[in-house]
Amino acid sequence: MWGGRFAGEPAEALDRLNRSLPVDQRLWPQDVRVAQAWTDALRGAGVLTEAEAATLRGGLDRTADRLRNGAAETAPDEDVHTLVERLLYEEVGAVAGKLNTGRSRNDQVVTDLRLWLRDALGAIDAEVQALGRTLVDRAADGVELVLPGYTHGQRAQPVRWAYVLQAHAWPLVRDRERLGAVAARLADCPLGSGAVAGSGIPVDREALARALGFRRPSANALDVTGDRDFVVDALATLGLLGVHVSRLAGELMLYASSEVGFVRLDDAFCTGSSLLPQKRNPDVFELARAKAGRLLGDLTALLATLRGLPAGYSKDLQEDKAWLFDAVDTVLLTLPAVRGAVATLAPRGDRMRAALDTGLLATDVADGLVRVGVAFREAHGLVGRLVRAAEDGGVALDAVPPDRAAAIHPRLPAILADLGSWEESIERRATIGGSSRAAVARQQEALRGAFAQPWTGAS
Amino acid sequence: MWGGRFAGEPAEALDRLNRSLPVDQRLWPQDVRVAQAWTDALRGAGVLTEAEAATLRGGLDRTADRLRNGAAETAPDEDVHTLVERLLYEEVGAVAGKLNTGRSRNDQVVTDLRLWLRDALGAIDAEVQALGRTLVDRAADGVELVLPGYTHGQRAQPVRWAYVLQAHAWPLVRDRERLGAVAARLADCPLGSGAVAGSGIPVDREALARALGFRRPSANALDVTGDRDFVVDALATLGLLGVHVSRLAGELMLYASSEVGFVRLDDAFCTGSSLLPQKRNPDVFELARAKAGRLLGDLTALLATLRGLPAGYSKDLQEDKAWLFDAVDTVLLTLPAVRGAVATLAPRGDRMRAALDTGLLATDVADGLVRVGVAFREAHGLVGRLVRAAEDGGVALDAVPPDRAAAIHPRLPAILADLGSWEESIERRATIGGSSRAAVARQQEALRGAFAQPWTGAS
Amino acid sequence: MWGGRFAGEPAEALDRLNRSLPVDQRLWPQDVRVAQAWTDALRGAGVLTEAEAATLRGGLDRTADRLRNGAAETAPDEDVHTLVERLLYEEVGAVAGKLNTGRSRNDQVVTDLRLWLRDALGAIDAEVQALGRTLVDRAADGVELVLPGYTHGQRAQPVRWAYVLQAHAWPLVRDRERLGAVAARLADCPLGSGAVAGSGIPVDREALARALGFRRPSANALDVTGDRDFVVDALATLGLLGVHVSRLAGELMLYASSEVGFVRLDDAFCTGSSLLPQKRNPDVFELARAKAGRLLGDLTALLATLRGLPAGYSKDLQEDKAWLFDAVDTVLLTLPAVRGAVATLAPRGDRMRAALDTGLLATDVADGLVRVGVAFREAHGLVGRLVRAAEDGGVALDAVPPDRAAAIHPRLPAILADLGSWEESIERRATIGGSSRAAVARQQEALRGAFAQPWTGAS
Amino acid sequence: MWGGRFAGEPAEALDRLNRSLPVDQRLWPQDVRVAQAWTDALRGAGVLTEAEAATLRGGLDRTADRLRNGAAETAPDEDVHTLVERLLYEEVGAVAGKLNTGRSRNDQVVTDLRLWLRDALGAIDAEVQALGRTLVDRAADGVELVLPGYTHGQRAQPVRWAYVLQAHAWPLVRDRERLGAVAARLADCPLGSGAVAGSGIPVDREALARALGFRRPSANALDVTGDRDFVVDALATLGLLGVHVSRLAGELMLYASSEVGFVRLDDAFCTGSSLLPQKRNPDVFELARAKAGRLLGDLTALLATLRGLPAGYSKDLQEDKAWLFDAVDTVLLTLPAVRGAVATLAPRGDRMRAALDTGLLATDVADGLVRVGVAFREAHGLVGRLVRAAEDGGVALDAVPPDRAAAIHPRLPAILADLGSWEESIERRATIGGSSRAAVARQQEALRGAFAQPWTGAS
Repeated sequence: MWGGRFAGEPAEALDRLNRSLPVDQRLWPQDVRVAQAWTDALRGAGVLTEAEAATLRGGLDRTADRLRNGAAETAPDEDVHTLVERLLYEEVGAVAGKLNTGRSRNDQVVTDLRLWLRDALGAIDAEVQALGRTLVDRAADGVELVLPGYTHGQRAQPVRWAYVLQAHAWPLVRDRERLGAVAARLADCPLGSGAVAGSGIPVDREALARALGFRRPSANALDVTGDRDFVVDALATLGLLGVHVSRLAGELMLYASSEVGFVRLDDAFCTGSSLLPQKRNPDVFELARAKAGRLLGDLTALLATLRGLPAGYSKDLQEDKAWLFDAVDTVLLTLPAVRGAVATLAPRGDRMRAALDTGLLATDVADGLVRVGVAFREAHGLVGRLVRAAEDGGVALDAVPPDRAAAIHPRLPAILADLGSWEESIERRATIGGSSRAAVARQQEALRGAFAQPWTGAS
Repeated sequence: MWGGRFAGEPAEALDRLNRSLPVDQRLWPQDVRVAQAWTDALRGAGVLTEAEAATLRGGLDRTADRLRNGAAETAPDEDVHTLVERLLYEEVGAVAGKLNTGRSRNDQVVTDLRLWLRDALGAIDAEVQALGRTLVDRAADGVELVLPGYTHGQRAQPVRWAYVLQAHAWPLVRDRERLGAVAARLADCPLGSGAVAGSGIPVDREALARALGFRRPSANALDVTGDRDFVVDALATLGLLGVHVSRLAGELMLYASSEVGFVRLDDAFCTGSSLLPQKRNPDVFELARAKAGRLLGDLTALLATLRGLPAGYSKDLQEDKAWLFDAVDTVLLTLPAVRGAVATLAPRGDRMRAALDTGLLATDVADGLVRVGVAFREAHGLVGRLVRAAEDGGVALDAVPPDRAAAIHPRLPAILADLGSWEESIERRATIGGSSRAAVARQQEALRGAFAQPWTGAS
Repeated sequence: MWGGRFAGEPAEALDRLNRSLPVDQRLWPQDVRVAQAWTDALRGAGVLTEAEAATLRGGLDRTADRLRNGAAETAPDEDVHTLVERLLYEEVGAVAGKLNTGRSRNDQVVTDLRLWLRDALGAIDAEVQALGRTLVDRAADGVELVLPGYTHGQRAQPVRWAYVLQAHAWPLVRDRERLGAVAARLADCPLGSGAVAGSGIPVDREALARALGFRRPSANALDVTGDRDFVVDALATLGLLGVHVSRLAGELMLYASSEVGFVRLDDAFCTGSSLLPQKRNPDVFELARAKAGRLLGDLTALLATLRGLPAGYSKDLQEDKAWLFDAVDTVLLTLPAVRGAVATLAPRGDRMRAALDTGLLATDVADGLVRVGVAFREAHGLVGRLVRAAEDGGVALDAVPPDRAAAIHPRLPAILADLGSWEESIERRATIGGSSRAAVARQQEALRGAFAQPWTGAS
Repeated sequence: MWGGRFAGEPAEALDRLNRSLPVDQRLWPQDVRVAQAWTDALRGAGVLTEAEAATLRGGLDRTADRLRNGAAETAPDEDVHTLVERLLYEEVGAVAGKLNTGRSRNDQVVTDLRLWLRDALGAIDAEVQALGRTLVDRAADGVELVLPGYTHGQRAQPVRWAYVLQAHAWPLVRDRERLGAVAARLADCPLGSGAVAGSGIPVDREALARALGFRRPSANALDVTGDRDFVVDALATLGLLGVHVSRLAGELMLYASSEVGFVRLDDAFCTGSSLLPQKRNPDVFELARAKAGRLLGDLTALLATLRGLPAGYSKDLQEDKAWLFDAVDTVLLTLPAVRGAVATLAPRGDRMRAALDTGLLATDVADGLVRVGVAFREAHGLVGRLVRAAEDGGVALDAVPPDRAAAIHPRLPAILADLGSWEESIERRATIGGSSRAAVARQQEALRGAFAQPWTGAS
């Protein structure tokens, strides 16, 4: 492969460290596709005769067949590029040696990887879309279910179950936007950049870019062969997606606990214990939570590796694939399981309602005081005293005796008598983005629209 | 502040941990601006009379004056919001208590922070733009300077100095695009979301959003009060920007060493040693390189903190500002110094040219064999043997005796005799994105255009 | 400072980037102490006369006084070393110029930092010890309180409250051991290493090491001036300590929620809401949880920065102090607040007991079947069916009708009738390390002993 | 496995996410060993008859044989524990169901992993030892070779090649100490802790611990089943080891470049280019450098995952093995290659000597002025002016005309005339830890001793 420059073989320890085929073999479909496009480019540049080009095309097709049938699995080659080249030699003989005219593994691998990522992003987007739709579908059934909304892990105000699910759907809308932006940044075709300084063959790089579904040829060969920004983009986006899923998972796991009990996991998405026969464990959510750590590790590793490298190709860049593949695999493993768990989750309205205590109406009481002219900050203080009075008396907020309430503020008894239902409390917060029926319906429509949008990253 | 709910004061140890004013005090201009907009919204909703609103507006103006004069510095308050509220009380008395009707620190802080980040991104973009322009300006003078292009830290092929500088400018073009995208994701106005479930006051959130320069009100109060995606976006983008600058810095630092010597730092951008009188140290580039680690730390900290949090506000989110401010400050400190160092760098054409050895022409020789019909892979092997022959003979590649060269391949002597100048070698790689004169000129124009574009993130 | 080598002043942008005084000024006590020791060493080596040494010693004392009185705060100097040198010049005149004979900022800073860290580790150990003792004290009152032990966030088996608190104390025992190990690794004194190759003055490095409380002089000047392993050690240890505190905080925060309610935070360690008058927020635990992210960021930043640096001093290393100081400050801010919150926490035995459901006895039932000869795996399956039967019947596990139970296994009715109290269930797991009374008492003694041990890191 | 508690099978998406066998199958030797020890413990506790125990022992032996022959590879099981249990059933039938009496996967997996790590640490220590010895061996041949020592990537003072290699050996000494400390922290045997609250079977945990080579039983079952501190310890230590190797690799890579050329990589440790026939690439060092990023990613992922978990087992902990195995594999792959490259490196004394310029003697000149009574800080400034004069005149430092030198300080011409050889300059820095012949010899002995020490982590 490296030709006649070396006297002996590389040491075995080097070979083991250096060999990337176990990781990069999954790029073979892209590598073959890129070879096909390069064959056409060399033909166009007059480097190949039509007969030679036809031979190579046929050989590449047969190489692809062999790879499809598992030829990579036990292959001894250094990497996917040398694997494809060797198989092509086996298929077509010496003419295979012409394929790599004017190209380098430096521009090849980064073209392969962009093509691979483009597809991977599409697959991930489809999973995000599916999870988003599932959340929206479940939200549709949760408009009438009222539960506490939490801040600081503490009950704050009553909200609708639909609204909580929607709150976890919006981050996925943002993720889709981000995934599309990452895909859009794959627009430049590196092929034809050579090793560092451009290709010595006058190939038509515009045509090459089009043939491979890129928007344009890359602008600077030194930059593009050493550029892994697109992998950083992908890993940062998947890292944040992982955080979103971990937040959903963490919250649902809490709600599925015996203590909270707002939802019950379906048997098909529970796991059991090897020792404790009664256990129904939410492994799906725990693992989803942990995967965010894994994705962060992948991102950290790449950014730390890129720091301080010069422009152009350094071998350090070879590691990028391990992290990218791990992150994509992790997301594609996690999202379907989380989606299934959400789709089959049974909400328990009785438990939700039982968790509503009148402390949740404290802001309503304060707002009532505001309506009769008390400044909010003062009202806040008065209601705080009311809360303490209720606690001291061991009664609900609206059961503080009128005389005690009136001692705090004369209008309090009337306000307490008029607090109304949980529904009414919710409907009093009718601004856009709130939990009122209208606001939730508005969101529902917007979310349906957002998740109906097709993948924008396709070329 | 927390009203009448508590019997005693918070413990001192809690207070010290909890207090965020030392960090968030720099948000005061945003907090005052948000308070002004909220005053208008409360007036619009009928919560305030026009007289009350006017009083508050005036009081906020005077509060801003006091803060501009340093009132925050020795303030005892818990955070910027309570600081502004206290000062407002001092200015206008009890009516200040009406300002926080229907809003919460949860929606306030995230509105403040988005406004702050919007400006910060603009400032960073201006610095990126300036550094990019400097690189492009320096490239304009580097077209005639030829030096080795490197891969794996080893000489690979001759390139132009302009081309190397351009390779470090393109990542900055991508950074500007990313910064703009981050700014675009700040479009949603959280104000009016209340603590968790929407505001109890029917404020016009569309008008509020417009007044503060946002595109629309946020869609879900539970989501937006617990959403720090925009901070992740910013930190990921700054982290990658930091990597880019570290790559430029690392490469220039190497080039500035005695051993390479392609460039010489200006005295104004060197530092000396306390012990070694002769030292001219490239601290500017070392620090720029280290800052990429710092930015990675900020990003990691935030992603690790967000993992597994439920939707809605958790106090954990308070930490985000420490990392965001640190990252923005770091970038704004680093970029001007790097720009200055680049602007004043003296390229040394003699040292560049001296580093060109004929090994760099090996691919040209192989391409020569290809032109006479040898398959590239075979040519690669033949030239490898030629390289070894040159090394064994202790001569340059083009000085291998013709008979020894002919023994490897009969056409080699003629090819070696016809290699031409370094310029000619470069011009042989005339594809788009290469280092040829035309390709470099094309890039120059594109880069000038890209750095001439105004900041797109302004609202 | 850098002497006569440069024609002009450094550029202002460089100066701002380069200047570390705002961060490293807190090293002044160490820098002065090191200067005192160096004065003695130079005297010993004959570089200073006794009169000169006495002048310097006096000048350093007065310099320390000025620094104690705030001289660093508005100082214009580049770093703490140049600050101390300038003040010394002001005190003693030209003889100050002799102090830096044969030393460099490279060996100085790393000596300062080791001294500083030695003290900081002691301070942290004292806080860890105090938190550990508090947990143990609280455990002493929790032996009789029975609550569910959790795995996967789900109730698993009954345990004692003491045992849960002890589970969070053991990691602190390990932290103390680690902190001691980190301190022990500070044994080598770098002073006298010069800039890179040893000092040109034949100082007695053994005596220097002793004078500064180190065990021995460092072994290789090139290594020690570029070595920040001890900072990595410290940050890794603090990072793990932060994780431990976050685990304690996360669990207590859950237990303090309305839904679980096993503990109640004291008012002095609660915070309130600006909008919701009823809120009692566990900010202390949320912040403690978030600080683990912060500490991870500090560690990540340092490791990423060190990657790939050559041996010897690089300016990149200057950043280490920002992360180390941040981490130490963070821990010293967090631990007292957590300790206070734990010390004042009110456990609620009624809520704990109410959370015990008979499902927690499922393993006891299976163990009962084992005792009558059923293989455990089979017993596990049978009890699983019993659990399902109870659920289907809407009854507790021990209330499954005897005929239904007997249909699963004939011995089940007798076993169910004989399950006994929660106490008895706990005592059935009487192995070392379990939750039985004896096992808990054994731990209590061991923990008291561990937290009684004095700090081992002092020199 | 999870018995009769569930109506149906787990969903396929859950199963795929949940299944850890592809990762944890390599723990089978430990899992079998733990099962053997547990068999004895159950026999001792009277749960098994001697006949049953003998049957299980034999079955476990045959299970191990099958696993040794690849039974794990296509196994459908959830994890290594269920795999071993299934195979045991196949070997011995229903009595296999008795093996898991009183134990849980929670205590099993963490016992397995500790045993595995104990061996892995030993293997890594052996590699660190071997690399250290190689460095020391190469240093032995490098005492006479003089080259510039660098700070800030700039030539600083002359040093011996041996000294540079030693500077990279000392961190490995520290790594060995750390690896030993990590191993020592594996002393506690978790087996017998059950799922969360201790085992229901009164096994002799002291005997169990001894049988498996631990020092004592673990102290708290809730703590130990959720404790992954030992994995953090390992990953932090490997992360720092990775940094050390990256620093060595980065420096050697620079020295192997054409521009510096202090060393030449052996052909057996070079790689070539697919396009550029002349290239000899230092992939081994680039990859070693990148692996530090990978190890940092593993550590970050784990710390982020542990943050905020409650005590006791959470499924999140399952991920730990992926990172630990990756880190251990990475180190065991990297170190032999780096060792081979170092062992075969050819130092080039001519290139080293050629890089010595008289600027490196500037400190010697300053020290000369100190010897005639000039304060060092003043001397530093005078020599700085001398350096500038040399540069302006385009001459070496010691070739500045005597009159120009005398104009700076009258004693300079004499000092310059008396600078002596590079050797003499080095020997002037004769303190411990310097680069003088004696100091280097002293280090050599100490390093040999340190690398001769046997692995201390074995139990």
